[in-house]
Amino acid sequence: MLNRDKIAAVAADMRARGVDVFIIGTSTDLEYVSGLAMHDCERFKALFVKADGGTFCLVPHIYLQEFQSGMPDTTPLYVWEDHDWFYSALARAFEEQGIPAGAKVAVNDSVRAVDAIEVAGRQKVELVNGWHYLDAMRSHKDADEAAAMLRAGQIADEALTALLPFIRPGRTERELKRRLLDLFEEKGAQGISFTPIVARGANAAMAHYNKEDGIVGDHDTVLFDFGCRYKGYCSDMTRTLFVGEATEEERTLYEIVRRAQAAGEAAVRPGVTSQEVDRAARRVIEEAGYGAYFNNRLGHGIGLAVHETPYIMEGNEQVLEPGMTFSIEPGIYIPGKIGIRIENIVLVTDEGCRPLNVFPREIVNVLDFE
Amino acid sequence: MLNRDKIAAVAADMRARGVDVFIIGTSTDLEYVSGLAMHDCERFKALFVKADGGTFCLVPHIYLQEFQSGMPDTTPLYVWEDHDWFYSALARAFEEQGIPAGAKVAVNDSVRAVDAIEVAGRQKVELVNGWHYLDAMRSHKDADEAAAMLRAGQIADEALTALLPFIRPGRTERELKRRLLDLFEEKGAQGISFTPIVARGANAAMAHYNKEDGIVGDHDTVLFDFGCRYKGYCSDMTRTLFVGEATEEERTLYEIVRRAQAAGEAAVRPGVTSQEVDRAARRVIEEAGYGAYFNNRLGHGIGLAVHETPYIMEGNEQVLEPGMTFSIEPGIYIPGKIGIRIENIVLVTDEGCRPLNVFPREIVNVLDFE
Repeated sequence: MLNRDKIAAVAADMRARGVDVFIIGTSTDLEYVSGLAMHDCERFKALFVKADGGTFCLVPHIYLQEFQSGMPDTTPLYVWEDHDWFYSALARAFEEQGIPAGAKVAVNDSVRAVDAIEVAGRQKVELVNGWHYLDAMRSHKDADEAAAMLRAGQIADEALTALLPFIRPGRTERELKRRLLDLFEEKGAQGISFTPIVARGANAAMAHYNKEDGIVGDHDTVLFDFGCRYKGYCSDMTRTLFVGEATEEERTLYEIVRRAQAAGEAAVRPGVTSQEVDRAARRVIEEAGYGAYFNNRLGHGIGLAVHETPYIMEGNEQVLEPGMTFSIEPGIYIPGKIGIRIENIVLVTDEGCRPLNVFPREIVNVLDFE
Repeated sequence: MLNRDKIAAVAADMRARGVDVFIIGTSTDLEYVSGLAMHDCERFKALFVKADGGTFCLVPHIYLQEFQSGMPDTTPLYVWEDHDWFYSALARAFEEQGIPAGAKVAVNDSVRAVDAIEVAGRQKVELVNGWHYLDAMRSHKDADEAAAMLRAGQIADEALTALLPFIRPGRTERELKRRLLDLFEEKGAQGISFTPIVARGANAAMAHYNKEDGIVGDHDTVLFDFGCRYKGYCSDMTRTLFVGEATEEERTLYEIVRRAQAAGEAAVRPGVTSQEVDRAARRVIEEAGYGAYFNNRLGHGIGLAVHETPYIMEGNEQVLEPGMTFSIEPGIYIPGKIGIRIENIVLVTDEGCRPLNVFPREIVNVLDFE
């Protein structure tokens, strides 16, 4: 149900920004303020928040029951039919809600440009980027949120542990991914955070590899980047496992990444900036001479969304505070050769941080597990 | 690899519309013109097509290999790093590519408003809605596309058939969904079109129900709306199955939906408009007195995307042509009571249409299948 306190905070922030209306499309922002999480499609549907704290919704008819279940009876629902599309309902809403031409209308990150362009063009309003309006609230997890994230992390640990004996030469990436998804279900996951990435050997050099045809070799590495949901909250972890004994070179590369990941976690504490944590981990990889093979940010915040504030990277001077949760995931990616990444989610505590994943970060040879 | 003919056709269409640049974000549009389908995230990445047919890409560093594999060496790739975000790379690209302030820049439906707002504000260009620019091309499936869609439909038929003995009282919607996903893999699906909807009894009254906790009763109905991919192309079918013998009332409602679905398929032929097909099916439900319980369009086009042109609904006077593929999915949804929907995908032929699903549309009692 729509959370009045959160909406009041959003409205206050909007007034400070001089924004008249904030459009929250189907997204984790909407889930955060209303609990509404629905099967999405191209039909434009959103919660509109006004600077005075008033709210109303634009609702495709087939989503009426969902919105009625998540909104108080006092929230006007402007329902539109497929054959009208949303234009006339939008015009009616803006008129009844007293939103004039020239109004400043912010949109969150789930609103499509093709819909926003129609809103701006038809209602003669000015569009504003509202991607980060809810960040301040969402980036501080309360006890319930932290508990849900801890459980989501535990389930991921348990699933990967149970998967070890299944990782063998000849298995396809697709088979491993499917088995991992089954294990999520068995361990009590409530959905997944994202489609798992299972990448063997050189495939792992593509950070967001999404093919599934690779076959595990007799001597190989397999990178698993995966996460599940619990009470809506996400886990996200990466381990690069060995099939057989790591060679000297592999061991050397792996140890650099492991030390970088540990250095990143060690640097986390309240008062430290995001970029300082990125630097702490990156320095290890650069000093080892592999800086050119680590080309992305060290980490990303996580909660209801897999990627949210705070982003752990150079140039981000955001100061870390207790209750923030984010990933620390350094890697070395050598195109055509190998990709190694180790990722944990950490929760910032009063003294430092608590990792929400406990699966070993040391070299693991899956053949040691029956 | 980028298809030169398709890009040339897009550019010609852009010139006719007076558009200078068309931004194609990560989407089935991008897959259609380049074959590029990648794991997506919030990093802005896109193919930019200029009115003269020239192309360039905005590429987050971690996606560099993917773009290099899908674009010719002659296509400039403007790469940006996480710590810069995309703004400076965008400015450099627009300057080098000679895109002036005031240019008309269209965006496809996958571009986020929060990114488009930055493009418009920083480059002082005018945004245009380019959602449907590729529709004319994409809505006509060639022989290879039709063959892929037929196979995707067959796999869906086979998966549901194999699932029948598993549908029993006491099963949760989640168990049925998981088993269905496993069957997709076994039958050779290459991914899914969307998260399957499995909804028992009254849950099915929500057209886009996405919970999974319902438990199949001793006497019940279970709606399955699901689809898989084959060579990128989607299938999408719905059947509402009975657990036990249908009651007189259930049989009556089901027969109305079945006759409406058949009437819709019978109305399909080249030269007929989309809305005529919608009317043909809707009339059956309205004349039976249940028009108030069928509140959405009759169908949607399908191909690389689950929902694309042509949309089969009132007000759409688009004329059907051979090679078009779309769903015919009437339903009766009585809140709190029951939901019944039957959906086939059809391919428009020279004489009429060919259903791409052959699973029976008559009443099926799952208890008859061991």
